[in-house]
Amino acid sequence: MMLPQDQVPRVLSGDRRALARLLTAIENERADDALIALHAHTGRAWIIGITGAPGTGKSTLVAALAKAYRVLGKTVGILAVDPTSPFTGGALLGDRIRMRDLSGDTGVFIRSMATRGSLGGLARATRDAARALDAAGFDIILVETVGAGQSEVDIARMAHTTVVVEAPGLGDDIQATKAGILEIADLLVVNKADRAGVNITVRALKNMLELGHPSARTRLASHHGQMLTVETHTINQNGTDPLWIPPIIQTVANDNKGIDELVAAIDAHRAFLTDSDTRDQIERHQIEIELSERVRELLLRQILNTVSAEALDEIVRQVQTRAIAPQHAVSAILNAAKRSGL
Amino acid sequence: MMLPQDQVPRVLSGDRRALARLLTAIENERADDALIALHAHTGRAWIIGITGAPGTGKSTLVAALAKAYRVLGKTVGILAVDPTSPFTGGALLGDRIRMRDLSGDTGVFIRSMATRGSLGGLARATRDAARALDAAGFDIILVETVGAGQSEVDIARMAHTTVVVEAPGLGDDIQATKAGILEIADLLVVNKADRAGVNITVRALKNMLELGHPSARTRLASHHGQMLTVETHTINQNGTDPLWIPPIIQTVANDNKGIDELVAAIDAHRAFLTDSDTRDQIERHQIEIELSERVRELLLRQILNTVSAEALDEIVRQVQTRAIAPQHAVSAILNAAKRSGL
Repeated sequence: MMLPQDQVPRVLSGDRRALARLLTAIENERADDALIALHAHTGRAWIIGITGAPGTGKSTLVAALAKAYRVLGKTVGILAVDPTSPFTGGALLGDRIRMRDLSGDTGVFIRSMATRGSLGGLARATRDAARALDAAGFDIILVETVGAGQSEVDIARMAHTTVVVEAPGLGDDIQATKAGILEIADLLVVNKADRAGVNITVRALKNMLELGHPSARTRLASHHGQMLTVETHTINQNGTDPLWIPPIIQTVANDNKGIDELVAAIDAHRAFLTDSDTRDQIERHQIEIELSERVRELLLRQILNTVSAEALDEIVRQVQTRAIAPQHAVSAILNAAKRSGL
Repeated sequence: MMLPQDQVPRVLSGDRRALARLLTAIENERADDALIALHAHTGRAWIIGITGAPGTGKSTLVAALAKAYRVLGKTVGILAVDPTSPFTGGALLGDRIRMRDLSGDTGVFIRSMATRGSLGGLARATRDAARALDAAGFDIILVETVGAGQSEVDIARMAHTTVVVEAPGLGDDIQATKAGILEIADLLVVNKADRAGVNITVRALKNMLELGHPSARTRLASHHGQMLTVETHTINQNGTDPLWIPPIIQTVANDNKGIDELVAAIDAHRAFLTDSDTRDQIERHQIEIELSERVRELLLRQILNTVSAEALDEIVRQVQTRAIAPQHAVSAILNAAKRSGL
């Protein structure tokens, strides 16, 4: 069996089998040497995160978007991530739909991301997989994730453009869920826009945007669906430049409606990030987060390798019996590590 | 303004205002001393996590469950967590419903959990808030969370019994989402069971359980909704004893249907955990995870306090320009910390 780093030249030359093997090594957390070698060849692809609740039709949208980029002559890598199914490892329903339409096209590479480990591990593996696709020369990388909350935040941390997909009539407390969108969405898509209730969904999203951007009220009313420039005020907390307001785009991905508008909006966001130097800031912020995570994990591993299992067990027991508080247990663990010579 | 730790005796004596202040201090991450003092008084409450996708009617179910426990003479603390809305801080729709029915009852305490910081911070604050309610003497603590993925995993890490709520007909790719349920669900509830499609939802859940527990097939067919004892095989990965199979319970929370059965199933799970010593294992596992997180965070903070901002910026820049890979950047940061005397 070839070591992952031996496959680096093959991956760089576009060998799909070598790429598939590398992605498997990434999932198994055995690709560090290969990733180090690939790093200098990354940074060319545009990474688009696509997220949303179950039932919004994300998978169909991703397939439609991939086809649109193919028509424009771009190569497309697709990573389908399901953080709610860490143990299944099987293909999602959406993959099968995509596979049928896109299979046989060597300009498209599709991969489902699964992990037997933690959700943090899945986020890390997906980020590294996107880098592998980037180094392999794909122009556009679509990272699709099911679910809300942490998975949306993780995807925003690896993407240049994050698309949040909604759909009409998904339930009575969906409005509460949507409130978190502003933090990560660069673009808002209302898919299944031929369904009843689409105006309610669009209005709810507009209201949410207005809450976040009071000065955008009148502009949103007349210009939604376009990139907007407003007075400086902070939009969100994830490093995005204050001058971008997420446009709301209506699509019917099943019928290929609104897809060209979505591609245009992604292009506009890309131009905005690049022209305003925001891309540079975002990338720095993403690297800072990644390095923080890596330092944290490495230090924890060093501690756990240094302190004996018996000593750790005893500290856990003391917290459980309420003899010591967790805050003091942490000091006890660090002291034990120091005594063991870390 | 009183310091949080001065309020500990008041919290222990059941002073609701002191409890509310402590919870605010917990959200602002300024309650460590109080939490250390409270730790010895925790461990009496039964913590029930309730999670599920938007539209399943979780909030109504939580209200119905709280009322049922009140009828049984138990006091109830409710934490409503919305990890998808870290910046809103407002009450969820469901809170208002609950507030209307439960307000004025001093045996109930309701709190929405919000944070201006990270999702990890929200999970930590919720765990500490549950401890505060525990120390304040509430018998039952209901922790409700919106969403899927990480938030479900986080809730399972602090709860004794985790209830996953589903509902009929929520969308075409919900089956894929459900595949992750086995990992965290102790009980499965199909709410809105008066709706069309309830049998499809129940059958899908049963199939999923059977995939996870092949030997449970025939028993599930005849005994679903009860606690089942089967031959030893591993159910899941989160430390739950292999002898528990999640029952599927149908409810119509709006009409208070199925709630007594749900309370009975929670009781059965509690008895199972306690009798089988699994409770002890779960608590140890939860403490191990918590201590790992705390050690990791503390060590990272120490590193970031030791290495100069200029040195960190330069390392980030080198990763961004692809001069060094992230893996090597981590070594560079740790070396810089060592040179600075950590």
